[in-house]
Amino acid sequence: MTVRMLSEASGSFTGAGALLTILRDGQARTRAELVQLTGLARSTLAQRLDALLSRQWIVPTEEAISSGGRPAVAFTFNSSARVVLAADLGATHARVAVTNLATDVLAERAAEVPIDRGPEVTLTWLQRTFEEMLAETGHSVDEVCGIGVGLPGPVEHSSGRPINPPIMPGWDGFPVPEWLSERLGAPVLVDNDVNIMALGEHWAARPEADHLIFVKVGTGIGCGIISDRRLHRGAQGAAGDVGHIRVASALDIICRCGNVGCLEAVAGGAAMAARLRAVGVEAAGSRDVVGLVRAGNTQAVQLIRQAGREIGDVLASIVNFFNPSVIVIGGDVAEAGEQVLAGLREVIYSRSLPLATQHLTITASELGDRAGVIGAAVMVIEHVLSPDSVDQSFVQA
Amino acid sequence: MTVRMLSEASGSFTGAGALLTILRDGQARTRAELVQLTGLARSTLAQRLDALLSRQWIVPTEEAISSGGRPAVAFTFNSSARVVLAADLGATHARVAVTNLATDVLAERAAEVPIDRGPEVTLTWLQRTFEEMLAETGHSVDEVCGIGVGLPGPVEHSSGRPINPPIMPGWDGFPVPEWLSERLGAPVLVDNDVNIMALGEHWAARPEADHLIFVKVGTGIGCGIISDRRLHRGAQGAAGDVGHIRVASALDIICRCGNVGCLEAVAGGAAMAARLRAVGVEAAGSRDVVGLVRAGNTQAVQLIRQAGREIGDVLASIVNFFNPSVIVIGGDVAEAGEQVLAGLREVIYSRSLPLATQHLTITASELGDRAGVIGAAVMVIEHVLSPDSVDQSFVQA
Repeated sequence: MTVRMLSEASGSFTGAGALLTILRDGQARTRAELVQLTGLARSTLAQRLDALLSRQWIVPTEEAISSGGRPAVAFTFNSSARVVLAADLGATHARVAVTNLATDVLAERAAEVPIDRGPEVTLTWLQRTFEEMLAETGHSVDEVCGIGVGLPGPVEHSSGRPINPPIMPGWDGFPVPEWLSERLGAPVLVDNDVNIMALGEHWAARPEADHLIFVKVGTGIGCGIISDRRLHRGAQGAAGDVGHIRVASALDIICRCGNVGCLEAVAGGAAMAARLRAVGVEAAGSRDVVGLVRAGNTQAVQLIRQAGREIGDVLASIVNFFNPSVIVIGGDVAEAGEQVLAGLREVIYSRSLPLATQHLTITASELGDRAGVIGAAVMVIEHVLSPDSVDQSFVQA
Repeated sequence: MTVRMLSEASGSFTGAGALLTILRDGQARTRAELVQLTGLARSTLAQRLDALLSRQWIVPTEEAISSGGRPAVAFTFNSSARVVLAADLGATHARVAVTNLATDVLAERAAEVPIDRGPEVTLTWLQRTFEEMLAETGHSVDEVCGIGVGLPGPVEHSSGRPINPPIMPGWDGFPVPEWLSERLGAPVLVDNDVNIMALGEHWAARPEADHLIFVKVGTGIGCGIISDRRLHRGAQGAAGDVGHIRVASALDIICRCGNVGCLEAVAGGAAMAARLRAVGVEAAGSRDVVGLVRAGNTQAVQLIRQAGREIGDVLASIVNFFNPSVIVIGGDVAEAGEQVLAGLREVIYSRSLPLATQHLTITASELGDRAGVIGAAVMVIEHVLSPDSVDQSFVQA
């Protein structure tokens, strides 16, 4: 990484990306300050600044000099240089946003969009929505630096394609990045919804946490993992699939994955709704369960608290293994707040090692149902502003 | 990190470390090549090369130029510039080595050293052994760039001190780094034995793996975690403590940690030896269990295979959560090889998600009982040759 970052080999603009990384902290800096900071030759620095200025990644500002000399030109990161299109597509619900390069939301929409209508219908809707929102905010497609999409199923990281997604008929292997990129003319990054939620929550609400686990409890259960401030996707991009960890209390229950004993077959929103229906309480899915808990339905409250314990049982092992500093609970069921957290904390604090729980924070998501869409924007921004991508953008031009 | 690496602020030698990182690949490069590679001004490059040459971190070599011109001086990393002292202190057994900066072992010793004799006795032995081995290899204390020590218990990463180590009476909070550093005059890094084993195995045998879990099954059970090619220590340095994850089959057993149901209370070497004694088979510890398995004792074979299944049960959940590409089994019990691996694989492949196990390798340690000492050397080398440390070494001089 170091070597690549410093590499001058692939063109005279190589290195502009590393310079932009320095300026991304928002502080304005003069040429003299940048020479001192980087050790670059003045001519090399000038070349890289020109490259960044030509694309408006940075803008000049005037800095008054305290010694009374004439003001020197300083340069600062321009978070309005481009816009980002971000989408969090859930099983039935979608949230879409246009943001700037600092994840400030310029426009946002939420809609009922069943993912099981297949990729063509869903992505056509998404394309139109993006176009409308760009028009609304007065931006053109040319200003879009990237598109981030979260999907409710496993996604192959290298290709951005869904792989055997259980609740997404027709999507298996569908080339989502190519489809959107051809129509909107910008690079597309796709990841599963829980990974982008973890990114969003970490970026916006827990930037100080080195190791964070974001557990989404909705229809199913999954988690996104931040290790050393970066998303841990695992070898096949399959990390975080905690919903199919076996728990003792579910050994007689067949999960939708075909296995028996999965956590989400007892503690997922769909499973809880089914249990309520079995005792004559009306509940179609996870949102109804949360509604019943909020309305004080005793059966629903007992069920959700027990679900918290079951999830806590799995997380207690994960806390021993991974030693996170923060566990965030998100997704529909998290909206039942303290009832879920109480069960969870009860088990984690009694079963995990004292050293690992000593400073552990277990909390509900601050971003709530916006975690995913913010995370999709973060994913794009981190990619687009990486030194390699910035350098590459000049080579391609 | 980028900013710090490029920073020129703290002295004229700052940046020499980044230059050394480029040269660590072993390739020889001329001044012209380095100017092209880094974009540095010639004068700045010269200053940094001089700094590295003055400490012999690099050596000049002559490169013939194919065009027939006179040979230009090239510079290459000097892995003999310094020596590293490395130790893996187990519960009863110690392994000590002197290596160069490429982890080549210059001298090595193994000895019975019970850790429960306390820090003064153990570290005095270690200091003498290091001094003898330095003399043997013809090196002086001045050439030692760092000392790496692995301990069989939790270690606070920031201070290098053991924290409440269960099998190390007298060691709690003992300032190991200061004690050794005062006597040997070099920086000391301390970590728990399983972390350094993971580092050693990753470096020497599995350098291609991005995500690796090294499970040590000895008297107790613990694991070291490599996430994205780096050691994941967790928020309190407590990551990897899988020995105290609760398993259903141990709910009636009190663990040495005071809790009930811990994995190592059924599958650790000490627990297995106790079980064998309970049925009249002589076995003092994990090594005896392995000896019995090798001799074909049926009870020991059944026990160790079941231990493999119990460990597999815990790892099956971890595979879903973490999605490693390699699981390595090390420690004494791993020497019973296929018997342990068979039970482990049986459970992991039946219980973890197909996507996560598709390309998963489950294997015994290649380095065996040398994993720890090699890892201790790797820990020191990675620290000493990091750009910041190299820069800092000039500031301190």
